[in-house]
Amino acid sequence: MIGVDWGTTSLRAYRLGADGRARDRLDRPGGILTVAPGGFPAALQDAIGPWLAAGERHVLLCGMVGSRQGWVEAPYLRCPAGPAEIAAATIAIPFDGAECRLVPGLTTEDAAGIPDVMRGEETKLVALAESLGTALACLPGTHSKWARLEDGRVTGFTTHMTGETFAALSEHTILARTSTDGPDVPEAFARGVDRARQPGGLLHHLFGARTLHLMDRLAQAETRSFLSGLLIGHEIAAAAADARQVHLASAAHLAALYAAALARNGIAVTQHDPDLVAQGLARIGRDLGWV
Amino acid sequence: MIGVDWGTTSLRAYRLGADGRARDRLDRPGGILTVAPGGFPAALQDAIGPWLAAGERHVLLCGMVGSRQGWVEAPYLRCPAGPAEIAAATIAIPFDGAECRLVPGLTTEDAAGIPDVMRGEETKLVALAESLGTALACLPGTHSKWARLEDGRVTGFTTHMTGETFAALSEHTILARTSTDGPDVPEAFARGVDRARQPGGLLHHLFGARTLHLMDRLAQAETRSFLSGLLIGHEIAAAAADARQVHLASAAHLAALYAAALARNGIAVTQHDPDLVAQGLARIGRDLGWV
Repeated sequence: MIGVDWGTTSLRAYRLGADGRARDRLDRPGGILTVAPGGFPAALQDAIGPWLAAGERHVLLCGMVGSRQGWVEAPYLRCPAGPAEIAAATIAIPFDGAECRLVPGLTTEDAAGIPDVMRGEETKLVALAESLGTALACLPGTHSKWARLEDGRVTGFTTHMTGETFAALSEHTILARTSTDGPDVPEAFARGVDRARQPGGLLHHLFGARTLHLMDRLAQAETRSFLSGLLIGHEIAAAAADARQVHLASAAHLAALYAAALARNGIAVTQHDPDLVAQGLARIGRDLGWV
Repeated sequence: MIGVDWGTTSLRAYRLGADGRARDRLDRPGGILTVAPGGFPAALQDAIGPWLAAGERHVLLCGMVGSRQGWVEAPYLRCPAGPAEIAAATIAIPFDGAECRLVPGLTTEDAAGIPDVMRGEETKLVALAESLGTALACLPGTHSKWARLEDGRVTGFTTHMTGETFAALSEHTILARTSTDGPDVPEAFARGVDRARQPGGLLHHLFGARTLHLMDRLAQAETRSFLSGLLIGHEIAAAAADARQVHLASAAHLAALYAAALARNGIAVTQHDPDLVAQGLARIGRDLGWV
């Protein structure tokens, strides 16, 4: 089978062997935002045509290609959901020369009834859940996802707008004056993480990044790292309050920051290869009888 | 005496009578950012020249004119501080034809040793403290100030970057897509205030403004008010956790929002005329022997 992770800014495709491993892969720009209306079949054919010509007959797509802005909108599937439920909720897309299905995103509601959603991450979590069974998983990013995995299924999750909030605050507030780009400063990051555990609230702690600088207690080159630690610290305080161990899957830079912040909160960290999507697509494909 | 509140974007001057009331006032653009280096004496002369010509001999300045970007930097005075301490810490500025002094800003440190600062608000708080004695005061804004007033002095305070965070998030994140300008929607604002009391943390609650819209449970015209209620609710949760009554001084729009959010948290609100600065300048002037 062929697995495709088609997101907002890129397309990643995998030719998956009978063992679920990627025998071949392709990574290109050409995210869904670059595709003109009606252009999805041709764009997909352009990407995976050679593999189809070589005899592949099944294509499983995940990511924002299944959103309102994508090819076809795949409704969100409610948690708890594992590979079996997700496979059953995939939707068929007409595509010449192959059976093509779309992975749905997941939705959940917290105790207050407020909804949360993910699209694309569910496929990575399926892979993590397969190997971990029961765990608390964190996929950090612009919109960090924290998911409870139980017996191989995703039973609930929360999204934290940490990365996007960091960008907005460090570029579009008074903190921008002193948040200069530059190398990470681990000591300043740790001070931000520690500050997040103190009383006062995030909106007050933010101003501390300004006043510490004003009082010559935080250098210009340190403000960005302090702010990053502060926000990640607040995320961890909310998402992992009672956790003793967190499973982290992320690209190297964010993985290092989150691992440091978790360790500083006394939480054990297991890091995972962030390249989980091929494995997740293969796992769902198995429940479709494609692998 | 003459009192001047010279901020970043405007200059407000008051001719104060022996009873401390403003007999005449002047409000103009021409904040400190518009003044060229060395131009402060001439700009002040231009604003209050007629009153000096009429015999005024004392000028008291407060606000950002005393900051590093202003005329002369007046070092921050440490809390607790009342009018007597503030008067004693004013600094003299050479100015032809009148005795001219600058009100210092205030600084404090929380239990963790993190500093906070204000400049300009101390003069308003002096006025509030004179009439209230002991109280919790809130001056909402871009950088909201919450001050403990005891026996007519400011004994401590916290700054919350609420207004500026609201602007950054509503204009420079995914929430901008649905945070359209428009009239306040009180019901959506109240939902945001209530959400702030629930678990999950601010960074998670922010994403809820997105998902509620995605699920057709928050209209585009409501998102801005929901976000505003969410942030003000988080500010109140941090700043007024144990408060039973808050004294609020702000322009009408913000005063209405904060009063609604405080009431929704079961906290009694007393609203005050936000035009407090003339009264505060007169009160400090009394300790200088100028009134």
